[in-house]
Order: sequence, then C-alpha cells, then structure tokens
Amino acid sequence: MDDRVREHAELLVDWSARVEAGDRVVVGVDDGTHELAVAVARELGERGAVPTFLDDGDELERAYCRGATTFAEPDHERALFETADVYLGLRGGRNTAALADVPGEKRQARGEASATLREARLATDWVTTVHPTRSLAQAAGMSIEAYREFVYDATLRDWAALEAETDRLKRLLDEGSRLRVVAPDTDLELSIEDRTAVNSVASVAHDSHNLPSGEVFTAPADVEGQVHFSVPRTVGGRRVEELTLVFEDGEVVDFSAVRGEDAVAELLDTDAGARRAGEVGVGTNRGIDRFTDNVTFDEKVAGTVHVALGRAYDANLPEGESGNDSQVHVDLIADLRDGGRLEVDGELVQRDGLFRWEEGFEE
Amino acid sequence: MDDRVREHAELLVDWSARVEAGDRVVVGVDDGTHELAVAVARELGERGAVPTFLDDGDELERAYCRGATTFAEPDHERALFETADVYLGLRGGRNTAALADVPGEKRQARGEASATLREARLATDWVTTVHPTRSLAQAAGMSIEAYREFVYDATLRDWAALEAETDRLKRLLDEGSRLRVVAPDTDLELSIEDRTAVNSVASVAHDSHNLPSGEVFTAPADVEGQVHFSVPRTVGGRRVEELTLVFEDGEVVDFSAVRGEDAVAELLDTDAGARRAGEVGVGTNRGIDRFTDNVTFDEKVAGTVHVALGRAYDANLPEGESGNDSQVHVDLIADLRDGGRLEVDGELVQRDGLFRWEEGFEE
Repeated sequence: MDDRVREHAELLVDWSARVEAGDRVVVGVDDGTHELAVAVARELGERGAVPTFLDDGDELERAYCRGATTFAEPDHERALFETADVYLGLRGGRNTAALADVPGEKRQARGEASATLREARLATDWVTTVHPTRSLAQAAGMSIEAYREFVYDATLRDWAALEAETDRLKRLLDEGSRLRVVAPDTDLELSIEDRTAVNSVASVAHDSHNLPSGEVFTAPADVEGQVHFSVPRTVGGRRVEELTLVFEDGEVVDFSAVRGEDAVAELLDTDAGARRAGEVGVGTNRGIDRFTDNVTFDEKVAGTVHVALGRAYDANLPEGESGNDSQVHVDLIADLRDGGRLEVDGELVQRDGLFRWEEGFEE
Repeated sequence: MDDRVREHAELLVDWSARVEAGDRVVVGVDDGTHELAVAVARELGERGAVPTFLDDGDELERAYCRGATTFAEPDHERALFETADVYLGLRGGRNTAALADVPGEKRQARGEASATLREARLATDWVTTVHPTRSLAQAAGMSIEAYREFVYDATLRDWAALEAETDRLKRLLDEGSRLRVVAPDTDLELSIEDRTAVNSVASVAHDSHNLPSGEVFTAPADVEGQVHFSVPRTVGGRRVEELTLVFEDGEVVDFSAVRGEDAVAELLDTDAGARRAGEVGVGTNRGIDRFTDNVTFDEKVAGTVHVALGRAYDANLPEGESGNDSQVHVDLIADLRDGGRLEVDGELVQRDGLFRWEEGFEE
C-alpha cells in the first residue's frame, strides 16, 4: 500500500474526525475507494473504535433508483446513524456520470425520502474525503499518477499551522455585516451580520467537515445582485458551464448558463430552499493548482469564492436560529483572480485573488 | 449483465427472501459481488423495498481485526438490523484466505463482541447466497467460466417442485427418534426426538436461509459415537482434511485430522457450545456434481451428511426450547456414497448415497 494512503487514513481519523476509543463509526465506501477503506479500517481498529462499512457507490444507487417508482424512508439506515458517533465518507467513484440516467423526479423523491437519514448523519462527527480514482483523474484531465500527486498535495498538509493563518479572514467575516463580491458580470451583496464564520481546516473540532479543506465560510441572511460562476461544475450528473444567477430578496429570480441549464432548473425546483443561498465561502487553499470538476477541491482554491444553493450549516447560525432548509447543498464557484475583489463593509479584503495580508496585494 | 445474474437476483428477492413493498432490506456485499449487488438493488427498487448496502468483505474485516486489540459491540450495526425486515448476504470474496493471518484469539473476541448483532441479523428474514467469483473458482479448481455454470446450475432451479420431492425425508426425520450414520470410520447415533426437520428449499417461507439449498436438517438433542468427515473444509482460513470427531454425551471428547488440527482445536475452544452439535443435515441437491471447498454447495450434495458444531437453529426446536448456543456454526461433511448408510430408528433410509425412494436403491 502507498504510504500516502495510510497517512491519509491517519489524518482523517485523528485530525479530521477526532475518533476516540469506543466510538461507533460508519464508513461510507464509494466505488473505487476500497484501498483507502482498508487503511481506515486498520486505523479505527488501532484506536479501539468500532466500524461499520456502507457500500455507498453510485452504481448501486442508480440501480435502486432506476428500479423504484416509490421511495420510502430508509429507517434502518437512519437507526444506524442515530446510534453512531462518527461518519467518514470516502468519496471516489468509477464514473462521475453514473447517475446521469436517473430522472430528476426520482432523485428528488429519493432525496425527500432520505431527509431524516441525512439529518441523523449530519448529527454525527462527519467528515468526507476524496480518494484518487481513475474516474476523478479523467474528470480532471489528468493521469492517475499525476492526480494522486494532486490529491495528496492538497490533503496531506499541516492543518494545525494553516488554522492560525486563515483565522484572520474568519475574524473579518465575524465582525462584518456585509460581504460584497465584484468581478466581470458579478456584483453581489450578502448580509452576514450576527453569523459565525467557520475557519475550515478539515477538522470537526473547527466545525469543518471536508478533508482536504481550506476555506472560510458563513451563512448569508440575505443576498442581492448578480453572480457569474466561471468554474464548471457537474450538477446531477450533468455539466454546468458559465452559470449566472440573479438574486432578489435572497431568492434566485433569473438564471442563464452556456451549458446545463436543464440541470440548474431541476436543482432550483427541488424545494423552496434550493432557490436560496445556504453558504458563502472564500477559498484559502494554495496547495490546489487547478480546477478538477470536483467541488471538494475546486471550492477551496485560494482566489475563488463560492455560493451554495440550499441547506445552511448550523455552525454559522446564532444559537437557536434555523437557517435555509433544503435537501440540496450545491456549491457554485466564481474565480476572482482576474479582475475580481472582495469587500467587507466597504473595506477591500481581496483583489485579483490575493488577500490584503498576502505578498503582492495592491490596494 | 449476464442474464443469469439478473435471474439469480430475482430468485433471491422473490422466492428466497419473499421481499415485499416497504420492506427495509440490508444487503451484505462481499468482495467481488458488486455485479450481483447491482442486480439485487434493481429488484429491490422494483418491489418498493428500501435497501442499505453493507461493505461486508474479508479485506476490511482483516484490516480492522489486525489493528484492534480490544473489540466492542457494534451497537450501530445492531440498530440497523433491529430496524430491518430482511438481510441478503451476497457471498463471494476475492481470496478465501483473506483472514488467514488474523489470530484466533482476535476472531474469538470479535465474535463475542458481535453476538447481539448476529442475533439481530438472524431475527430478520435472512438469506445468504453465492456469487461466482474468481477466488471461489480457484478454490474449486475451476475456470471462472466453468464455475459460473456450476453455481447457476445449482442455484437457478425449480425450488417449488423440489420442495414436494424432499418432503418425505423431512417427515421421516420428524417422526423418528434416532438417526444413525454408518460409513468407513463412522458410526454415529443422534437423538432427534421431538425436533422438527427443515425441508431446506432456499426460502424463508420454509425456514431455509441459503440459496442454493437442498438439504433436510434438524437439531440433535444428543450425539454419541465417531464420525469421519471425508470432505475437506476451510475453517478459520485454514484447510481441514480427513477430520474425525468422537462424541460422548453430546460433546466432542477427541479428534484427529490429517491437516488443520490447530484450526479445529481453536474452533472447539471458541466457547462451550462449539464442542456440541447444533445441526445434522442430509444433502438432497443432485444439481451439484462436485465438492468445491464452499460449504453452501458442499453440504447440499445428495449422498452426503453434515454435522455442524455450534449454534442450533430455532426452527428445529420445540416452541420455547433453546438449543445449543454458540457464536460459531461450522458444518462438517461426510460423503456416504461409497459404503455409507443412514438409518432412522433402525430403518434403512439411504445406502451408498441413494434414498430408498430413488431408482437404483438396494436394501
């Protein structure tokens, strides 16, 4: 086994999920991630945790959804999560388009039927990570060898050291009340007063649930204006390119895209919350040198900002307040490195992708 | 997809497990059984059942057990089974020796920690089946192509028709009080009074939980004498050949084997119930033409008899009576086709592998 697979498993279990002896752990094993699952199994054993492994791949999901005409709640799987302490989602896959021929209305019905299961999973100390598979390498236009380098460069970092660095962005967002994003075809204002930003450094101890991570995000209370997402994304198995959204009173009232408009329309129609933004995030990971059509990496690129349609995270909200509710959470990404800027309450925080505290920044 | 995979999935879901709309189903996906799992997912969807897939392979189990020094109860997985209606175990694997380097004491501790989980799984309508993998083909000394023929010949049968045929053996065992097995190096008496035999035709509707099946089995109350198991088995990852057991007062008091004595010793020391017989079964499947080191097939061969060390099944016992209790259930197989015979209360039922109602039988 590649030493990096072992290192990845150790980082996931220790730094990210903070697994302790006696923890009941659910490991979601995506297609093509068996090798990482084996390394994780070993680490969990060594820590005295008790694992159960779910076969979580898209190929089984597709077959089930294609066969089904009605969707009921997976009570038994919900019971599994309700009794678990930790969920580790190992993402990978053998085909990013595996779900492409599952009709949108079935996805939606399946999503609705799984709502309480999802709640139970999010109530654990959950972390998702990415194992370099050939399918993801292909989507990134890379060889598997180069892609492994890419993934491990982004993932196997000194997260404790990064936490201190990006904390200043978190403090700016915590103290500010309005975040403005300006770029070609983009002028968006998001109200963020009384919200708490998460300094996402890939650990549940920081309310951060992705490994790799590298972003600071919060939940906007209101959104006004237009935003152009220049970074392509695969939404519901279909590619979406050059998407522009127009927000009024926090809700998407108009949109256009060069490719994948039907996928966007389906997404927006999922439920009422799918038309509202649950998250705005600012990428801080300088270890990721390109876009690879994988949101876990793309949204973390330093010099980008992303807005998620759908569900908000409790960690961003004042105690007792519930944020935007939806069964979806789809991050859409804008690259600000060429002519973009971020302002908090009128103060310039980033220009052309460089933060004001970074070398080369120009007012 | 091979049509036979689809046919296998359909038989498993309909005839064997009797899955109904709304059923919560756990599917255990062994290494190398993905293709069958996809077909099962489709069938479950079509029937309105709700599946959850466990990644149940030996490679993850090995990694966890190798890492662990203490074993706690998988409460969360038990909760999954407690909330489920049906369990479908898809057996296959990529290496029959995958667990060979897990020390016996760890297997035992793991088994003890999983006792209540196992109870919860057995409380569902559970069925295990076999998908033809290269590993199993190798263990059988066959090409994968020939092995597929072998598995599907044994599995894709008209089970409803077979049920009527083998019912007369069930009635003999139900009405009899003593079963005697005689063969070279073998003279064993088993008391079976007041026990109910199961006519195992691969359906939970007949208390039969293996697909393929083809056996009639009951739970002996007492066992006396000696039995030689001429059919090799892999026990705890190690091959056991030419095993002879001596029973006194229902308990194994002596044993010898040409190969694998250490594996047998470990098995017998698992717990008190591992020294007692939980099952005696008579093979009735004439579709299986050879031994393949896979108990699901080997124990079903017509002309063989098997005795299981360990746990008894409730279906064989009078209401309210608990049978032999153990965390193991290991079937050991004797071939009676060359000089063997079966008697019930002194009456000859089978000689040289032929039942008295079959053509060619000689008193």
